[in-house]
Amino acid sequence: MAVHLHEPETLLPVPGVRLSAVAAGIRYQGRDDLVLMELAPGTACAAVFTRNAFCAAPVQVARSHLQHSRSPRYLLINAGNANAGTGEAGRVAALDCCRAVAGEGDCAPEAVLPFSTGVIGEPLPVGRITTALPAARSALSAQGWIPAMRAIMTTDTVGKGISERVTLSGGEVTLTGIAKGSGMIHPDMATMLAFVATDARVPEETLQDLLQGCVDTSFNAITVDGDTSTNDACVLAATGASGVGLAGEADVAAFAAALDRVCRHLAQAIVRDGEGATKFVTVRVESARDIAEARRVATTVALSPLVKTALFASDPNWGRILAAVGRAEVADLDVGAVCIHLDEVCIVRNGGRDPGYQEADGARVMARDEPVISIHLGGRGTACTEIYTCDLSFEYVRINAEYRS
Amino acid sequence: MAVHLHEPETLLPVPGVRLSAVAAGIRYQGRDDLVLMELAPGTACAAVFTRNAFCAAPVQVARSHLQHSRSPRYLLINAGNANAGTGEAGRVAALDCCRAVAGEGDCAPEAVLPFSTGVIGEPLPVGRITTALPAARSALSAQGWIPAMRAIMTTDTVGKGISERVTLSGGEVTLTGIAKGSGMIHPDMATMLAFVATDARVPEETLQDLLQGCVDTSFNAITVDGDTSTNDACVLAATGASGVGLAGEADVAAFAAALDRVCRHLAQAIVRDGEGATKFVTVRVESARDIAEARRVATTVALSPLVKTALFASDPNWGRILAAVGRAEVADLDVGAVCIHLDEVCIVRNGGRDPGYQEADGARVMARDEPVISIHLGGRGTACTEIYTCDLSFEYVRINAEYRS
Repeated sequence: MAVHLHEPETLLPVPGVRLSAVAAGIRYQGRDDLVLMELAPGTACAAVFTRNAFCAAPVQVARSHLQHSRSPRYLLINAGNANAGTGEAGRVAALDCCRAVAGEGDCAPEAVLPFSTGVIGEPLPVGRITTALPAARSALSAQGWIPAMRAIMTTDTVGKGISERVTLSGGEVTLTGIAKGSGMIHPDMATMLAFVATDARVPEETLQDLLQGCVDTSFNAITVDGDTSTNDACVLAATGASGVGLAGEADVAAFAAALDRVCRHLAQAIVRDGEGATKFVTVRVESARDIAEARRVATTVALSPLVKTALFASDPNWGRILAAVGRAEVADLDVGAVCIHLDEVCIVRNGGRDPGYQEADGARVMARDEPVISIHLGGRGTACTEIYTCDLSFEYVRINAEYRS
Repeated sequence: MAVHLHEPETLLPVPGVRLSAVAAGIRYQGRDDLVLMELAPGTACAAVFTRNAFCAAPVQVARSHLQHSRSPRYLLINAGNANAGTGEAGRVAALDCCRAVAGEGDCAPEAVLPFSTGVIGEPLPVGRITTALPAARSALSAQGWIPAMRAIMTTDTVGKGISERVTLSGGEVTLTGIAKGSGMIHPDMATMLAFVATDARVPEETLQDLLQGCVDTSFNAITVDGDTSTNDACVLAATGASGVGLAGEADVAAFAAALDRVCRHLAQAIVRDGEGATKFVTVRVESARDIAEARRVATTVALSPLVKTALFASDPNWGRILAAVGRAEVADLDVGAVCIHLDEVCIVRNGGRDPGYQEADGARVMARDEPVISIHLGGRGTACTEIYTCDLSFEYVRINAEYRS
């Protein structure tokens, strides 16, 4: 059961983008599992990939193709098989798929970016994919976002997508994004993919800067269990079909804000659909010396199995939060200056239980679906950050213990 | 159910050490919860404490008293209340207990080291402890190890203790140790305590070096869920009552080896009794550039919830192990050189599934109670390490979600 997450009923077309979803039978039966996304000539593209050393074959190929050209013509995405841990044969398989799309679409193989998500370590069934390509090609449509959103799902229980319209000085532009991932957590269902497109006209370098900035506070600010997948990728494509560019700082700010809303929505949707999640939890750290310190404290708390099981139990167990802060390797931490709130309730003041704290107040806020844990480190600095996570439930263990069987 | 762990029926007395266990009613009813350990005058003492910034009051006091004198006369240990997160009042409470023991025992308060384990954030019931002290004092006995071992338990399901005899050039000496902890994992049942005594005559500096060396490969090499307690402490006392010293390198080596066996047994016993554990898992990393790198890789694998749930499910999910290695931030890792074994079965060779690997072989070894995951990083260096952990089961979530209710 995803936490307050509903599948969008419609997503806005993005001029310059056509998509299709077909059933290639890669692993699943009776559902679409292959997406072709066509980008108009001249589309600029930015991307962020997993930092896992064992990155999957499609990640290696997509990265290399993007270095060759920042203006790809096709994205090919399959669910059910991650083509990870497959060595040189996996790279050849990904390249074969790119060549097949290029042959159909009359472009260079380097203008095709491959993405895979699904089980690790099994050979990619290239034949099934190439066999399905003609149908995918003829089904391409500007209206294809919703079927594409559904076709890239693996253990997701809810499709994840969002559209935004933003008015720039030259006119209105659209952003539409889809993502899949049930936590960032599933190396064997190698996991997070996000695709955002806009008809704004944005130069490649600006696009990459904008995406990187948004990713740090969205996709890189979520954690379900700390495991980073071999296939994580996020792509931002700007077709320029609206003819509207970013003319000046106000336009850049407005576009960046819209992109931020899209990325945050998609990233938080992944946590809300986190495996076994019953709560969506924000861990906020304030007054850190720098962002790295703030992130270290927030991540330590967000990843602590003891904090996460206490959240599952709706137990305002402030000792566990305090102990997690204490082991986050904050140099010269003045523990007597640390304050912690659960929503509006102060549980720790000056390093110990707040004198006015009542267990009943703590229990009341911990019972909420979307509690916020705020940690104030004292007067160390002005850096702050937020990390989004979920609780650790029986269901998480069941899903991950039983997945392959 | 602890994994292949049985309570010792006898523990050898250590000349120069007397212990007692009494029921002070600190939290539990109908069981001993207070231990007094008397050390002969001139006993040398070494100790290692938690690095958690929010260390508990008794840790602060014990550390300060040890700086004052390396030859304490009494250790006072209570279960049921950690005296952690209790601020200045907690420090005063710990000091009051020390003063009471000193008054009974005719020594300076600084010659008493306090240790507490139990619930965080509740005031230590000093009165109950001091009331029980006369009974504890009159019950002191060289035979008191087994009752002491049981009295310091909290969520432990099995008492943890071991004795070793080792022959040095000057004669035979004894080492006896007890420990408590159900994982290093319970900040609210703040957690690991270990007490080892010997009648060998060992100078303080040598003792501290020997303890630190052993702790790195024992108590600092175990993890259940990565949470570090506010109360962790390990004490090594050498009474010298045997008159046998460490005369030369062979003696030091023999004594160190015996101490290592004691510490490893106690540390591994804590993992075997880890909350919800059904398996005892060794993660071994070889060919790392340095020890820090080896530990980082081993710990990342040992802490991965996905690896731990796969172990619970007896699922030889090598993709999860590979992905954990990949995110362990090993600089310039040549993924094509990585090999991974489960016991005798090679699952990953040169960065991909071993060509000869059969799922049935993997399933066979994963079904064992004590699997060893061996990770060979290629020719980076000669550093190697072992980390001990357990699997992540439904029971872990149940224990930690329900503990306070």
